[in-house]
Amino acid sequence: MVRSSVVLLVVVLALGTGSARAQSAPDLAKDPAVKAALDYAKAHEQDTIANQIRFCEVPAPSFKETARGELLKQVFQELGLANVRVDKAGNVLGDRPGAAPKPHFVIAAHLDTVFPEGTEVKVKREGNTLHGPGIGDDCRGLAVLVTVAKALKEANVKTPGTITFVANVGEEGLGDLRGVKQLFNDTLKDQIDRFVSIDGTGLSLTRIGVGSHRYRVTFKGPGGHSFGAFGLANPIDAMGRAIAKIAEFQVPKTPKTTFNVGRVGGGTSVNSIPFEGWMEVDMRSADAASLAAVDAQFQKAVDAAVVEENTRWNKPGMITATKDLVGDRPAGNTPADSPIVQAGVAATTALGFSVPTPGEGSTDSNIPMSLKIPAITIGGGGHGTGAHALDEAFDTTDSWQGTMRAVLLTVLLAQR
Amino acid sequence: MVRSSVVLLVVVLALGTGSARAQSAPDLAKDPAVKAALDYAKAHEQDTIANQIRFCEVPAPSFKETARGELLKQVFQELGLANVRVDKAGNVLGDRPGAAPKPHFVIAAHLDTVFPEGTEVKVKREGNTLHGPGIGDDCRGLAVLVTVAKALKEANVKTPGTITFVANVGEEGLGDLRGVKQLFNDTLKDQIDRFVSIDGTGLSLTRIGVGSHRYRVTFKGPGGHSFGAFGLANPIDAMGRAIAKIAEFQVPKTPKTTFNVGRVGGGTSVNSIPFEGWMEVDMRSADAASLAAVDAQFQKAVDAAVVEENTRWNKPGMITATKDLVGDRPAGNTPADSPIVQAGVAATTALGFSVPTPGEGSTDSNIPMSLKIPAITIGGGGHGTGAHALDEAFDTTDSWQGTMRAVLLTVLLAQR
Repeated sequence: MVRSSVVLLVVVLALGTGSARAQSAPDLAKDPAVKAALDYAKAHEQDTIANQIRFCEVPAPSFKETARGELLKQVFQELGLANVRVDKAGNVLGDRPGAAPKPHFVIAAHLDTVFPEGTEVKVKREGNTLHGPGIGDDCRGLAVLVTVAKALKEANVKTPGTITFVANVGEEGLGDLRGVKQLFNDTLKDQIDRFVSIDGTGLSLTRIGVGSHRYRVTFKGPGGHSFGAFGLANPIDAMGRAIAKIAEFQVPKTPKTTFNVGRVGGGTSVNSIPFEGWMEVDMRSADAASLAAVDAQFQKAVDAAVVEENTRWNKPGMITATKDLVGDRPAGNTPADSPIVQAGVAATTALGFSVPTPGEGSTDSNIPMSLKIPAITIGGGGHGTGAHALDEAFDTTDSWQGTMRAVLLTVLLAQR
Repeated sequence: MVRSSVVLLVVVLALGTGSARAQSAPDLAKDPAVKAALDYAKAHEQDTIANQIRFCEVPAPSFKETARGELLKQVFQELGLANVRVDKAGNVLGDRPGAAPKPHFVIAAHLDTVFPEGTEVKVKREGNTLHGPGIGDDCRGLAVLVTVAKALKEANVKTPGTITFVANVGEEGLGDLRGVKQLFNDTLKDQIDRFVSIDGTGLSLTRIGVGSHRYRVTFKGPGGHSFGAFGLANPIDAMGRAIAKIAEFQVPKTPKTTFNVGRVGGGTSVNSIPFEGWMEVDMRSADAASLAAVDAQFQKAVDAAVVEENTRWNKPGMITATKDLVGDRPAGNTPADSPIVQAGVAATTALGFSVPTPGEGSTDSNIPMSLKIPAITIGGGGHGTGAHALDEAFDTTDSWQGTMRAVLLTVLLAQR
């Protein structure tokens, strides 16, 4: 429980009305225990950075997060979190019980990176800059997550509600948010009242979850010699027809809705009619209906392209297409005037930092947002560049701001 | 010089009028020296097969034919051929002077295979069947080439004209006929009166050279994040538009003209607008004008696709396409009633074998055909399966027929 009942009252009002948070956060920041936790976070930023490096030097490609997960489990245990456990998906959870089980606030950072096995993960330090794959996305988040738990412990902060710390799997690419899907659909199903993901860098605040559908489409036919078998329908031709149609899609500017043919392949030699062609297609929107609409256009385009190619060569049924959904991130958003967004803004400004306009992104928060559970994603501070690239870097200048903000926001969201 | 002046006279008439070859070949086959050469070829078929295996176990991917070429050079020297040499391209040549330098007949087989370095080339024998990559295409041709020289030597056959034996490089795929191009454009420029390539198996006779143009087209753009940078023109979309146009090309059935998009690739991840897409396109026709026409359609289709993609996104010049000609086999043909085609038929039937209808193909003879130099391609006998596949095989049953036919045809074409 936070020691100042005055602050508590203000917070209760704030969460109840969704309007007064901007006033309550500065008061909470002045509460002696909370202030001690904030001071601890700032004073120990070098420990946060050391953890960031330590976590990052354990490889954790999506679907292969076990080793890094084991490390986080050990750290959670050392921090004295209760009921430290690994769920079916590989998410690592640890609880910090409050005065009551509810409200139940979950704060998470993701274990996985986009980098394949065998990637060199040694972190190099040059002045204020750390170089290493995943150093910002999301080793920073993991390190801040740990410091939040540590600061609350060191300052003996008491909260009315319970906090669960989660280092989750499967945020990146084909990981397809499987960690948070497990969390919300099974591990902590119907138990989570508020959710924050610390993902990436800076003081960003994401309240719009851009949904995406990703498909791998495989076109197949018999194939044959380019001269001898000429007259067969060609699966790459069918694919080309589909791409030409996709390129003409009309999509709304607002809500921003996009499509992309990102990768293609197929064929064995220039002088063989291929037996296969494939493409990977990404569609996104922050609006579920708009995403469904562009998906429907896509389905029709592929089907029509196949029919056209077969008709062109008078070979009904020769080319077939299989559309495999390889990514499905639901769209969702947390309203700008919702208590959790206001809490995110207030926790930032109460510390004297400036917050960017709450924006959109595709993060672990997509899942709770799609379930109408209050959720935002926040940056972990510092300044990151080259996310998803081998030359990813993280500038530690003033990175303590991100850590402090996460501490204050955690306390704020663990109020009634 | 062939010993029977009667035969010589008939041959001269035949070559002069292009009509009497069907009668002359049987007479030539009865000439004692020629008959001795034919008998030698038949009796020593096991030597031919042994050479076929020996040559095939020396790897010779296109552009890496040196080791196999060295072996053929050594064999040519052992056979006592004159002026054994390796030209600039790597072709191995050896002469068998006749009474005069002219007519100058060149008989060739190609050294190279489609199989990359590191392919296991050990030949396995099961009963009458040899298994090994390249065993038919064209180790068979090389072995027959050598036996022709050996049989003429053993039987001391004299010819009016001069014969040059050639083991040439670069027939396959991206080798793009570079060996014969070198031969006709430089090494023996303006010196060759008649040309035969021994390529593949059976008793086939190819008089129509299917020409081909092969392109690798690379579409480029800046690329970017599929959501963040949406609105950029997409090089794979431009490629899809081009493929959709190509798929609608109308081409003549006669002369048979074809097109094929054989391979495509590009892109780095589903959620990135790609910076590059590429495709490989093959176009073929036995008719040079038809090949030029389909090529012109192709050029226009690519250019129009690029403009359409840039226009769609209002990004003039953003996407560019580079069309690299990676294969250029000129079309050509040797008329059905020409002396060399008649000689090919007569040499087959004179020995009591049946010859398939002279057909079309894409072989080393394309080059002389395109230069209007009399040329055909003949099979080396036996029965081949799985050319260009790792499980290529060669059935030696009656394969001596191919060797004998090559001997008789060589003598016939070295007449005035």
